[in-house]
Amino acid sequence: MDKTKQILADYAARIDAILQDIMNIEENAIADTLISAMKYSLFSGGKRLRPILTILVAELLEGELDSAGKAGAAIELIHTYSLIHDDLPSMDNDDYRRGKLTNHKVYGTGIAILAGDSLLTYAFHLLSQLKIPAERIVKLVGLISEGAGYNGIVGGQVLDLEAENREIGLESLQEIHLAKTAALFRSAILAGAFCAEPTEKELAALARFSEHFGLTFQIVDDLLDVIGDEQKLGKKTGSDKVLNKATYPQLLGINGARASAEKSAALAKESLEIFGSKAAILNDLADYIIKRQS
Amino acid sequence: MDKTKQILADYAARIDAILQDIMNIEENAIADTLISAMKYSLFSGGKRLRPILTILVAELLEGELDSAGKAGAAIELIHTYSLIHDDLPSMDNDDYRRGKLTNHKVYGTGIAILAGDSLLTYAFHLLSQLKIPAERIVKLVGLISEGAGYNGIVGGQVLDLEAENREIGLESLQEIHLAKTAALFRSAILAGAFCAEPTEKELAALARFSEHFGLTFQIVDDLLDVIGDEQKLGKKTGSDKVLNKATYPQLLGINGARASAEKSAALAKESLEIFGSKAAILNDLADYIIKRQS
Repeated sequence: MDKTKQILADYAARIDAILQDIMNIEENAIADTLISAMKYSLFSGGKRLRPILTILVAELLEGELDSAGKAGAAIELIHTYSLIHDDLPSMDNDDYRRGKLTNHKVYGTGIAILAGDSLLTYAFHLLSQLKIPAERIVKLVGLISEGAGYNGIVGGQVLDLEAENREIGLESLQEIHLAKTAALFRSAILAGAFCAEPTEKELAALARFSEHFGLTFQIVDDLLDVIGDEQKLGKKTGSDKVLNKATYPQLLGINGARASAEKSAALAKESLEIFGSKAAILNDLADYIIKRQS
Repeated sequence: MDKTKQILADYAARIDAILQDIMNIEENAIADTLISAMKYSLFSGGKRLRPILTILVAELLEGELDSAGKAGAAIELIHTYSLIHDDLPSMDNDDYRRGKLTNHKVYGTGIAILAGDSLLTYAFHLLSQLKIPAERIVKLVGLISEGAGYNGIVGGQVLDLEAENREIGLESLQEIHLAKTAALFRSAILAGAFCAEPTEKELAALARFSEHFGLTFQIVDDLLDVIGDEQKLGKKTGSDKVLNKATYPQLLGINGARASAEKSAALAKESLEIFGSKAAILNDLADYIIKRQS
């Protein structure tokens, strides 16, 4: 476990260096506050899981690591934008994330919305500047805009808002989680694959992996909101209950939810069997996210 | 004048057909409310000026008209997203636009933010699906994300928010307008050019045209907020004064602002001289936006 943690930290440091480089734009920017607000949330201690997955998959398939790093960074920008907008008063109304005040608590709601808009737009700009064949860039833009769009994180967030104060079943909850969380994991994982030359079989395996991985991640997220340690999480727990949101623990109980997460993680690992021992780190990662405490 | 109006109406109808086609996605969408909110603002009587410019420029340079129509439609999605977010309570707090309730007044602030996010994301997805050489798609993604980004409409909106209740000079006001309005006009115009094979000279001329055209448009917008007819505009006038925003009429007086708009329009037309009579409709359009009443 500690070994996985160390590997993740090393990869995260690589991503952070790319993000620092990408965000080194103050000098030519017309609005300093905007860049400052974008950076505030981007550099607030994210785990960089999505770009790490992009790089790990590109390594697995012996693809272009430089492009994978940058494509992963673009996805991290999109992930950050979605968190800023999710936290807004008209959405989940959260004051803290990762132990720091949320973007709108520091910059005000107007600037927070615009910082999110700008991160999303800049992500696509970065993709357009990649030094890889244009066909591949177009593939990445298509893939990432799909995971982020009306049937991905935005659609999932709408379903999530609509599910507040309503009773929903396990199937609907899974639909929300697949869109809100698993879709962008899918984009991150397949983006890594498209930095190489994947076979159809490899793509299908990775798509299955991403779905199970995303679900596992989200079930654990639900669990941590009930039984997590506020200090380690850097945010208040119990927020799902306040918003009267359906969650896995609510529908299945704590033990049921944990069993469900473990089953999901096992399925994620099973999806990677065709890669054999080359997928060891991805397997470790699936174990890791089950045991994570933040 | 009436002839120009008729030509614009014909082009707008073509764009509307493309937009209808693009937005025919309910059947596969997971969140009906989201699609409904996206469509509400997209089909609320916009003039479609940006996509019309994209098509007109593609025609001028004998480019691919089908792609120009679709790229223009993607830009109209981005324009619509920016209006939804600009109207929000934490920004300009407008209740009406084009004679209809603003998006957040109908769907609530949360859904309105997400409808904007979704339109922006879908625009890039549509670009990725164009049936033109990948190099050209990448160029369009780069160009459009630039006009929409931190030094384009988002940056301009931040400067605009920061200028409320502050005294600013003509130079700062022009910087805001260039970013907030002219940048996306520039993307729309150059997108049309990249649907053909433009020379460097043609690109430079069109870039100059777009800057002057965008400024003219925005000065007239400022004027209409002071002396326009609320019925024709479909929104309350005087809102700049309420927000204590610097405007051209405030800095130059009504007559000074009108003279400035006329000078801008003349410079826009001058930029097109190299195209001779082939640019007749673009010239008419520059005259038209000076005389527009809505």
